[in-house]
Amino acid sequence: MYTPKPEDKFTFGLWTVGNRGRDPFGAETRPPIDPVDIVHMLADIGAWGVNLHDNDLVPIDATPSERNQIVSRFKKALEETGLQFVMGTVTLFFDPIFKDGAFTSNVPEIRRYAIRKTVEAIDLAAELGGKIFVLWGGREGTEVNASKNPMEAVKRFREAVNYLCEYVIDKGYDMKFALEAKPNEPRGDIFFSTTGAYLALIPTLDHPEMVGVNPEFAHETMAGLSFHHIVAQALEMGKLFHIDLNDQKIGRYDQDLRFASENIKESFFLVKVLEDGGYDGPRHFDAHAYRTEDIEGVKEFAKGCMRSYLILKEKVKQFNEDKEIQQILAELKVDSHEPLLYKDIKPDQLLAPDFDRKAWGAKGYGYERLDQLVFDLLTGVR
Amino acid sequence: MYTPKPEDKFTFGLWTVGNRGRDPFGAETRPPIDPVDIVHMLADIGAWGVNLHDNDLVPIDATPSERNQIVSRFKKALEETGLQFVMGTVTLFFDPIFKDGAFTSNVPEIRRYAIRKTVEAIDLAAELGGKIFVLWGGREGTEVNASKNPMEAVKRFREAVNYLCEYVIDKGYDMKFALEAKPNEPRGDIFFSTTGAYLALIPTLDHPEMVGVNPEFAHETMAGLSFHHIVAQALEMGKLFHIDLNDQKIGRYDQDLRFASENIKESFFLVKVLEDGGYDGPRHFDAHAYRTEDIEGVKEFAKGCMRSYLILKEKVKQFNEDKEIQQILAELKVDSHEPLLYKDIKPDQLLAPDFDRKAWGAKGYGYERLDQLVFDLLTGVR
Amino acid sequence: MYTPKPEDKFTFGLWTVGNRGRDPFGAETRPPIDPVDIVHMLADIGAWGVNLHDNDLVPIDATPSERNQIVSRFKKALEETGLQFVMGTVTLFFDPIFKDGAFTSNVPEIRRYAIRKTVEAIDLAAELGGKIFVLWGGREGTEVNASKNPMEAVKRFREAVNYLCEYVIDKGYDMKFALEAKPNEPRGDIFFSTTGAYLALIPTLDHPEMVGVNPEFAHETMAGLSFHHIVAQALEMGKLFHIDLNDQKIGRYDQDLRFASENIKESFFLVKVLEDGGYDGPRHFDAHAYRTEDIEGVKEFAKGCMRSYLILKEKVKQFNEDKEIQQILAELKVDSHEPLLYKDIKPDQLLAPDFDRKAWGAKGYGYERLDQLVFDLLTGVR
Amino acid sequence: MYTPKPEDKFTFGLWTVGNRGRDPFGAETRPPIDPVDIVHMLADIGAWGVNLHDNDLVPIDATPSERNQIVSRFKKALEETGLQFVMGTVTLFFDPIFKDGAFTSNVPEIRRYAIRKTVEAIDLAAELGGKIFVLWGGREGTEVNASKNPMEAVKRFREAVNYLCEYVIDKGYDMKFALEAKPNEPRGDIFFSTTGAYLALIPTLDHPEMVGVNPEFAHETMAGLSFHHIVAQALEMGKLFHIDLNDQKIGRYDQDLRFASENIKESFFLVKVLEDGGYDGPRHFDAHAYRTEDIEGVKEFAKGCMRSYLILKEKVKQFNEDKEIQQILAELKVDSHEPLLYKDIKPDQLLAPDFDRKAWGAKGYGYERLDQLVFDLLTGVR
Repeated sequence: MYTPKPEDKFTFGLWTVGNRGRDPFGAETRPPIDPVDIVHMLADIGAWGVNLHDNDLVPIDATPSERNQIVSRFKKALEETGLQFVMGTVTLFFDPIFKDGAFTSNVPEIRRYAIRKTVEAIDLAAELGGKIFVLWGGREGTEVNASKNPMEAVKRFREAVNYLCEYVIDKGYDMKFALEAKPNEPRGDIFFSTTGAYLALIPTLDHPEMVGVNPEFAHETMAGLSFHHIVAQALEMGKLFHIDLNDQKIGRYDQDLRFASENIKESFFLVKVLEDGGYDGPRHFDAHAYRTEDIEGVKEFAKGCMRSYLILKEKVKQFNEDKEIQQILAELKVDSHEPLLYKDIKPDQLLAPDFDRKAWGAKGYGYERLDQLVFDLLTGVR
Repeated sequence: MYTPKPEDKFTFGLWTVGNRGRDPFGAETRPPIDPVDIVHMLADIGAWGVNLHDNDLVPIDATPSERNQIVSRFKKALEETGLQFVMGTVTLFFDPIFKDGAFTSNVPEIRRYAIRKTVEAIDLAAELGGKIFVLWGGREGTEVNASKNPMEAVKRFREAVNYLCEYVIDKGYDMKFALEAKPNEPRGDIFFSTTGAYLALIPTLDHPEMVGVNPEFAHETMAGLSFHHIVAQALEMGKLFHIDLNDQKIGRYDQDLRFASENIKESFFLVKVLEDGGYDGPRHFDAHAYRTEDIEGVKEFAKGCMRSYLILKEKVKQFNEDKEIQQILAELKVDSHEPLLYKDIKPDQLLAPDFDRKAWGAKGYGYERLDQLVFDLLTGVR
Repeated sequence: MYTPKPEDKFTFGLWTVGNRGRDPFGAETRPPIDPVDIVHMLADIGAWGVNLHDNDLVPIDATPSERNQIVSRFKKALEETGLQFVMGTVTLFFDPIFKDGAFTSNVPEIRRYAIRKTVEAIDLAAELGGKIFVLWGGREGTEVNASKNPMEAVKRFREAVNYLCEYVIDKGYDMKFALEAKPNEPRGDIFFSTTGAYLALIPTLDHPEMVGVNPEFAHETMAGLSFHHIVAQALEMGKLFHIDLNDQKIGRYDQDLRFASENIKESFFLVKVLEDGGYDGPRHFDAHAYRTEDIEGVKEFAKGCMRSYLILKEKVKQFNEDKEIQQILAELKVDSHEPLLYKDIKPDQLLAPDFDRKAWGAKGYGYERLDQLVFDLLTGVR
Repeated sequence: MYTPKPEDKFTFGLWTVGNRGRDPFGAETRPPIDPVDIVHMLADIGAWGVNLHDNDLVPIDATPSERNQIVSRFKKALEETGLQFVMGTVTLFFDPIFKDGAFTSNVPEIRRYAIRKTVEAIDLAAELGGKIFVLWGGREGTEVNASKNPMEAVKRFREAVNYLCEYVIDKGYDMKFALEAKPNEPRGDIFFSTTGAYLALIPTLDHPEMVGVNPEFAHETMAGLSFHHIVAQALEMGKLFHIDLNDQKIGRYDQDLRFASENIKESFFLVKVLEDGGYDGPRHFDAHAYRTEDIEGVKEFAKGCMRSYLILKEKVKQFNEDKEIQQILAELKVDSHEPLLYKDIKPDQLLAPDFDRKAWGAKGYGYERLDQLVFDLLTGVR
């Protein structure tokens, strides 16, 4: 019942199951895994696709012929397993050259290098058949506010995305961009700190239709924001091009926990928005196993992400079929939309003659009961 | 030197200096003040203008004639003092009818009432000469996620703003809207939780040119986001129509502290963005005095907001004239913008032949020294 | 199965089900309820006991004869219903006199008044048969750090508790104190901000055996701390005299949500610590219904608190009886304690000859699987 | 004026100026520095002392003879420079063996290894003349709550500290322990998450007089707690054995920023508590330079820490000598302590006959003005 199928569109990045358990206070706890082995492992456990940063596959210092050999081995693994390549991205954060930013660096040479590196990563993604390219500007930010002009940062970032769109058009790639926000870490403050900030940038780009967002559960949750609310907004605006699923506690370091392992309820409402809201893109797990795990634990982690999604998806179905819950929602008119247009109804027509403000103020909404029904449903006692 | 002048455009809401010190755990500690007395007090201490919610001035149950009498007394006070009326807004949060939302309520009658109440508040603002109308949807949100459809909430909110724009156009008012975001409190999660989320909504409205944002220091800071970064983004996009200045600690209840009383450094960079970034709107203090204060303390509070702004503004001037700092910034090319357009330069032209990634990675940026100079400047030892 | 019984020891404060829905941005949404009616309501829904602040029952300005009449009516209601009176406390926060603190106020007269008010509240609690007296110093703190000497605050608070212990001894009451910490709200920063800070104070009191703690889920959670960890520490130290159950999101205003409505997993581990750790005191729900609710919703809220506790308690039982989980825990030696005493084993005897650091570093702990089993158990699919 | 002197007791850990700029998303940006060179650098810039973890100096795999050679070189550097060795500690977090804890690990062999490693680090500290030994249990915690028994964790940790105290007594070392709390990172939740939790543990140890705390600015601040309040509590209790100075924003990853670079006001009140409260131990900076810095930037960072402390110390002096401020404080009786003992004054004697609750409730405390004077003083305009 909770076995992943291709139509579930579950994907993992090479960097997720390949994560070696390094953290700011500790060394790696797991050996490296060959990307080809990761592809086989993901296929074995039922994933549909795989994603990668350029340097997850090709080392930053590889020669062109090394690069081609690596890519060719990887493509062969995809063919052997039937695993899809879904999304490509670029690491503009690991190498020391990016320590003060990439697209928004003060140094023109570094901005140019960042764009060049991205162009190459786009080529790689296109070669592998990818149609989504994620941009996460992990180093675009500050600890020292005097060191950056934040209005200029907006301009520099916009210019970079415009450049990349032109490149994709020029090459004729069938590829869209998804911008991924994060409030902080590894910078003290990262520019475009929320998904909303990127959604706001898009209409100011030269090719807004090519650009959407890639919200990440952990990133909005770090700031204590409702993740499913902003996902719903992006979806309503037609801009949810990709999504990063994981888990996180509010107000702490980026945890990238197994999906739904921490916030069961918020994860449920997220799955509900995705399933009911018409999202048909990949369900990408951008998470990693605890440092305590060996390779077996990594597999359990990946299987757990998919299993928990499917459990919650089943609960969404149950919620949607629960007569008592649905009757409550219908009475509350939760999903109703009665258009209210100025041309149709003028201000003095808005209120019925018997409108009674105090009576409406005294209305009991029954939300404690509704929420308890959700608790019962989530805990399986309903 | 730090005496406020009209050109500083300092404004206060009636609800700020009129705040009576009620909080969730305690009763009012100060008596009410007549709005007319507030106008005189604000004029006395050097403020330029005053703002109000409809019900700060006119009780929700006032008859039309009571309303007109109150407004007329208030206009007289404005005339006598020369204080400007700057911004109007509407309380869609205090009365129990709004306990589950206003524009996004599930109840069509309440949505209509909210719009009608706003229309009347717009009329009041127009009558007083206001050109900015702020919309803060304090009750638009949830504690119980099952009780709302968050995609529908976007549609309902958009429709309400579209309606209000039509009304303003129809009446021929010279008025713009400024949307104010807040992540939570008084709701568990408020829709459009950040300024970015509202900036993203605006291009999807029927009259985007009439709508901007009103970011509030405390609101973004509650979520731990860099306030001056998002203000800079709004300013760059031409959407900073108004601003709410106060102070706040990250991750706690809405404190609305005296401007700059908590985060001296962030307040400095905010003033810098406003002053250097070309913002010429009002500097509105949306804060209130501690509960420990009597009326004298309230005046000290209001004077302190303006004084601290002027002290920081003077420090911005000093920063901009400091030769050592400016030389560092020039060498760092902090404000430089070298256009990079795809039509001018292709990917294979981006890197100079002698480009050396590792050398750039080893570059020392001198940011510890720069930040220490800022510390010295802020603490007055420079 | 999930019907509350007296042995569950569920209690509610008068202020919880009696909460009228006032918040910083809105008026009351529910009418007041007579304490006698609350007693009957609590008895009807299956609660075991009731708690109160002095002024929940007796208005601050009541005369002695009014006070006695009120108390006598209340005692009659207790008798009629069989509801237990369990815990008394004192409001040292609502009246404006406490706006800058009670026991730690700078004003000697206010410190004395606070002690006097507490003495009277102790008398009331004793008269009603209470054996636990909670002290929450909601106003003991600062927004303005210059206004208080924080070392002096420790001394003043200690002196007050010492005084109250002497009083209880003098009167021969069978009563213990439980200190309740909170990091902030309604003060910017409250002294003794965590349960740990109070646990640390206790051994420095004159009668440490009479004083324990009353941790509150929401209060530690506001600061992002693990609640069940500190509850476990208090329990291990024999100092868990009382507990406040509710729910809360990290990093925001005090929400006092229905128990387990937000953090299902943390609530489960809390129930596990209480049930497995030998806590036999009351399970007190210090929460309130959403503002959207009428009296029916308030009852659903209270029933939901108890129901969710019982559901989680049943899951603890299931966890403890699950063979697969228990085998994993036994293999991991989670509960094992092998004493290690210096007198028995010297440093050079600590390591076995074949001790292999790298092998231990490579060990896989299987925690992803264990945690997924917990997810399955919590969601009822196991 | 702001030049460090030995009597300022400024110290740095080898790991602070030696930090290489690695973070979760990026590689090292600075080359390693020989500990001997660090000693010389610290002496050059005016530090008084140096601290170290065992493995900052001696690699974990060093043979005894390598160890002795390294230590001997280091001692020579201390002698040459006159730099003091002040505090020793042990890394129980970096090596993969500690990935699930050290003293509280489920694995008895790992608990024993952790104690053995600490014993050797104590020997090293003693050999170098150190009198303070810090214990930070960075890995003592959980992500998976089912994997640990939190009451058992208290017992295991207590037993380890008892063992180490016995060892120090047995060896006749003149050494005390300082326990350092942290709420999270690198673990999801760390046991003893606050300084208060450790202060509470100490009286339950076999040798409480040998054990105090080492509060860290960043650690309490991550949780949004007032740092100077808990430092004051520790100081009042005679338990402030050491302190870690740095800076941090609330609710985010461990930043370890240059002292006072972020929270100017809180840093001022911290310095005030330390200077006025009688703390005479080392002022240890547990921070590191931004990743953007080279070795020159590292020196600027270290000099900045000391300079900012001295600037704030001077401001404390100015505060204490400011007649207006001092008069306000005297009128407020901020520092006054009027003993209130039950034996001297009974409850019915507490209130004066003319005690007027409402008059006290209406009192204005003048805190807005006081706080503004602090702002003026901190910004140097006073």
